Amino acid sequence: MASRKTAEEMGKEQKEISISEFFEKNKHLLGFDNPTKALLMCVKEAVDNSLDACEESGILPDITVKVRQLKDDSFRITIQDNGPGIVKDQITRVFGKLLYGSKFHKLKQGRGQQGIGISACVLYSQLTTGNSTKIWSKTESDKKTHYYEIQLNTKKNEPEILKEETQDSSFDHGIKIELDVAGRYRKWVEDFLRQTSISNPFAKIVYTGPDGTKTTFPRTANELPKLAKEMRPHPYGVEFGILQRMAGATSSRSLASFITNDFSSVGATTAKEICKIAKVDENKKPSDLTRDDIEKVLNAITKMKIQRPPTDCLSPVGKDDLEKSLKKEFPGAEFISVRSRDPDVYRGFPFMIEVAVVYGGDIKNDSGELIRFANKVPLLYQAGACATAESVKETDWKRYGLQQANNSLPTGPIVILIHMCSVWVPFVSESKEAIAPYPDIVKEMKLALQDIGRELSRYLSGKRRAGEAKRRVLLFERYSTEVAEALAILSGKNKAELEKKLKSYIGDRVKITEEGEIEGIEGAKEKAPQDEKPKAKKKEEDVEE
Amino acid sequence: MASRKTAEEMGKEQKEISISEFFEKNKHLLGFDNPTKALLMCVKEAVDNSLDACEESGILPDITVKVRQLKDDSFRITIQDNGPGIVKDQITRVFGKLLYGSKFHKLKQGRGQQGIGISACVLYSQLTTGNSTKIWSKTESDKKTHYYEIQLNTKKNEPEILKEETQDSSFDHGIKIELDVAGRYRKWVEDFLRQTSISNPFAKIVYTGPDGTKTTFPRTANELPKLAKEMRPHPYGVEFGILQRMAGATSSRSLASFITNDFSSVGATTAKEICKIAKVDENKKPSDLTRDDIEKVLNAITKMKIQRPPTDCLSPVGKDDLEKSLKKEFPGAEFISVRSRDPDVYRGFPFMIEVAVVYGGDIKNDSGELIRFANKVPLLYQAGACATAESVKETDWKRYGLQQANNSLPTGPIVILIHMCSVWVPFVSESKEAIAPYPDIVKEMKLALQDIGRELSRYLSGKRRAGEAKRRVLLFERYSTEVAEALAILSGKNKAELEKKLKSYIGDRVKITEEGEIEGIEGAKEKAPQDEKPKAKKKEEDVEE
Repeated sequence: MASRKTAEEMGKEQKEISISEFFEKNKHLLGFDNPTKALLMCVKEAVDNSLDACEESGILPDITVKVRQLKDDSFRITIQDNGPGIVKDQITRVFGKLLYGSKFHKLKQGRGQQGIGISACVLYSQLTTGNSTKIWSKTESDKKTHYYEIQLNTKKNEPEILKEETQDSSFDHGIKIELDVAGRYRKWVEDFLRQTSISNPFAKIVYTGPDGTKTTFPRTANELPKLAKEMRPHPYGVEFGILQRMAGATSSRSLASFITNDFSSVGATTAKEICKIAKVDENKKPSDLTRDDIEKVLNAITKMKIQRPPTDCLSPVGKDDLEKSLKKEFPGAEFISVRSRDPDVYRGFPFMIEVAVVYGGDIKNDSGELIRFANKVPLLYQAGACATAESVKETDWKRYGLQQANNSLPTGPIVILIHMCSVWVPFVSESKEAIAPYPDIVKEMKLALQDIGRELSRYLSGKRRAGEAKRRVLLFERYSTEVAEALAILSGKNKAELEKKLKSYIGDRVKITEEGEIEGIEGAKEKAPQDEKPKAKKKEEDVEE
Repeated sequence: MASRKTAEEMGKEQKEISISEFFEKNKHLLGFDNPTKALLMCVKEAVDNSLDACEESGILPDITVKVRQLKDDSFRITIQDNGPGIVKDQITRVFGKLLYGSKFHKLKQGRGQQGIGISACVLYSQLTTGNSTKIWSKTESDKKTHYYEIQLNTKKNEPEILKEETQDSSFDHGIKIELDVAGRYRKWVEDFLRQTSISNPFAKIVYTGPDGTKTTFPRTANELPKLAKEMRPHPYGVEFGILQRMAGATSSRSLASFITNDFSSVGATTAKEICKIAKVDENKKPSDLTRDDIEKVLNAITKMKIQRPPTDCLSPVGKDDLEKSLKKEFPGAEFISVRSRDPDVYRGFPFMIEVAVVYGGDIKNDSGELIRFANKVPLLYQAGACATAESVKETDWKRYGLQQANNSLPTGPIVILIHMCSVWVPFVSESKEAIAPYPDIVKEMKLALQDIGRELSRYLSGKRRAGEAKRRVLLFERYSTEVAEALAILSGKNKAELEKKLKSYIGDRVKITEEGEIEGIEGAKEKAPQDEKPKAKKKEEDVEE
């Protein structure tokens, strides 16, 4: 039996744990909890970084992804971009040190947030295969390409350089990375890239899978989206400790100017008003604020009506571009419609929802599909925990002419797409697989879905009307001869003539029904369901007269 | 519009992020995602540490917990134990530095694992109230108590000491900690402590809530459970990178001795066998192993039949102690039964499942309740994602005489308790709220549940039989007079006599049914449901003869 310990003995065992050791042991927190997912994560992290870098430096992304099988349970992943590259003295740390990045301390929309992703892949690679990661980087100003073979020293959380050299440039500028990882291959890699190209229509992605087949996801937009601006924190949702720290660090000389300069959406008058309500001298030096002052200011802020944060810090896909890429992706679809909501705020963070619905045509799968994005990155796991799924399930699709079992997706040949972009996406876990269902966020999604739902229902009922009209016509044609005969007997008129008349008469009706059909499909967009009833009635009269 | 950047400009923005900054911004990962939960987390982390320390140092825990309301949205939490205390030079880092602890690098069953919990509470306290945390510590060898007021420097992830002094000892040895936190109060704090006392029957916990009411959870066991031993890693489930690192760090001189000494459950012969299968010289110096060697050894291990890891590294609650604390907790229960399974293994980690079912009596709630524990710590959130819930839902309770809707808990006055203890509990998130449903783990839980289920069903059907028997007796008594009369007429015998006979006859039956009743309840344990039918039939015949 193990022996009991004294405080002194226990004290000797206290040790510091490096963040790398922590995530190595808890790799499931980063999404490396099974071989299939792990392989996908490596592709995802590299592609996310490439897209972020290209967007930031104004380059239309050209990305090639290769997955090659090494053994039955290990793969070599090679990803190359035409981005700005990374300056020499940063390369190894960007890839070989966890929690090292440029985005964490900023409020700015980006795919990456924490500076963990790609280094975690390097860590996973060495953990599962023992191989080091190969990196090529060239900036425009570099004469040659910098080549590194690195591993991650988990004890120190620092990169370990195994090989370093400069090579003649095989490319103008950009990054190339090669990772060997234990994994299992599924077509999800391709799904991920396909969805990525939907939400990043300005990117060209060429993918070569383990079987050697090459798939190209072409560009459907030839301009980069407007670049998201960095924003200052919004007063709403700022916490005591943060305000305290900001007050200590600010260069502003007075409380009033501190509130105006260091936060977004606060004008001088509002700032002064806050000080007044808080009963704290607006000229007080921020660093002199007592705990009590800070508390008063915080309370005052909650009492103030402060305008929403700026929205130029958001970079949505855009209605037109999204529609274009969906048309490319679903060429035969009967119905494609996109909504993008006005920006809204949760906990002081601006966010924006884009939603699209694709229906019919070449969508063979009848079970309904949901495609989810956060800051233009496809989300492939934990749908059940995601605000997107919640909003779709809570929407009553029966009202829009679709079938839907309790608390589930609508069924039918339908694909629903939801994109949330924000300066800070509230992911439920560090593996960034699902968006936390904050009420404000779910509400925005539902409003967009309901709006499209109404349009879809108009389309579907139009289709139904057209169908009915057609059936009526066929009916008349089938019996026209008999009717003509009967009329001939009754009226004593020439049968052939009557039949001709009848046929032409039906011909007119056909035109009407054709219109009805056109109206049912095209016109539906303009007309609300309610004003369909009377119209339908009228047509009936036409036919029966 | 924001301006595009060059690689150089982007390079300047790359920064290191401290683990504290990371968790401050991602506090939801640690369970601080809402005020109610946050308050509970602080109590939980402190209590967990106290219990761990007491167990390790062989002290029967005496813990007092106080929660006092400061403002409508902030509380002062004070927790004191009689543990070994912490040596002076460790105190501030244990409480003021994330990822600092004694358990991370060991394979040993414990409540804490990562050295994050309590420092995260200190971080949350200063973030939400700006107040510093007060700590008192005294070891047996300390003359006086060491007092500190600390905060956590998030940039450096180091403790910041605001006040330090030695005080005359108000207690022999132990830790006292006082935290001010923003929170919302719910009775969950009490629930947590109640459940903690169930799974830690050797601990005495006294709790004073915000309304001043004092609740004592007494000790029901006066001995500490056997202390869990530390184990060496089991060869199964060891990863390439880990094996590589171990080989580099070992003091063993040959590969064979390395495998024998540094891993658990491997004898010299097995080790040599592994080398042979791997075709790597058993005398090769571990540090000389090539990547290829390591791969071969890993493959050889998977081919070998290696015995299970030792189980003395596990410290369950124990069948008897668990039953005792349940009897204390549910004094009026009709049925209490406990199962503890033999230890099993997942991914090379030994684990053990304990299950209990409490039925009827003073359990008023009819919706069925599940109480979950991991390493003796109650789990109060994310039940949906937990292996425990999955195992209960996948068990067919209808077979055991209970009602159960699809994929949900059984209904009825039933409380189900599941405890998993392991050297490494696979939590689904860093907030340690749910056990990842690995098939091996769920299977063990289900086997235990089915076993208790059978016992419960015997008890319930016994109860039913007894009830039926009683009803039959009453029926006979009610009609005995009439029957006597009829018989008197038919047989011409004396009615009074006949009635007396009948009554006594029924009297015998009553005895039988009493037996039946006793048998239904006591004897049921020995008898399987199937052998009930014939018996029931027989009784009918008795009555009808």
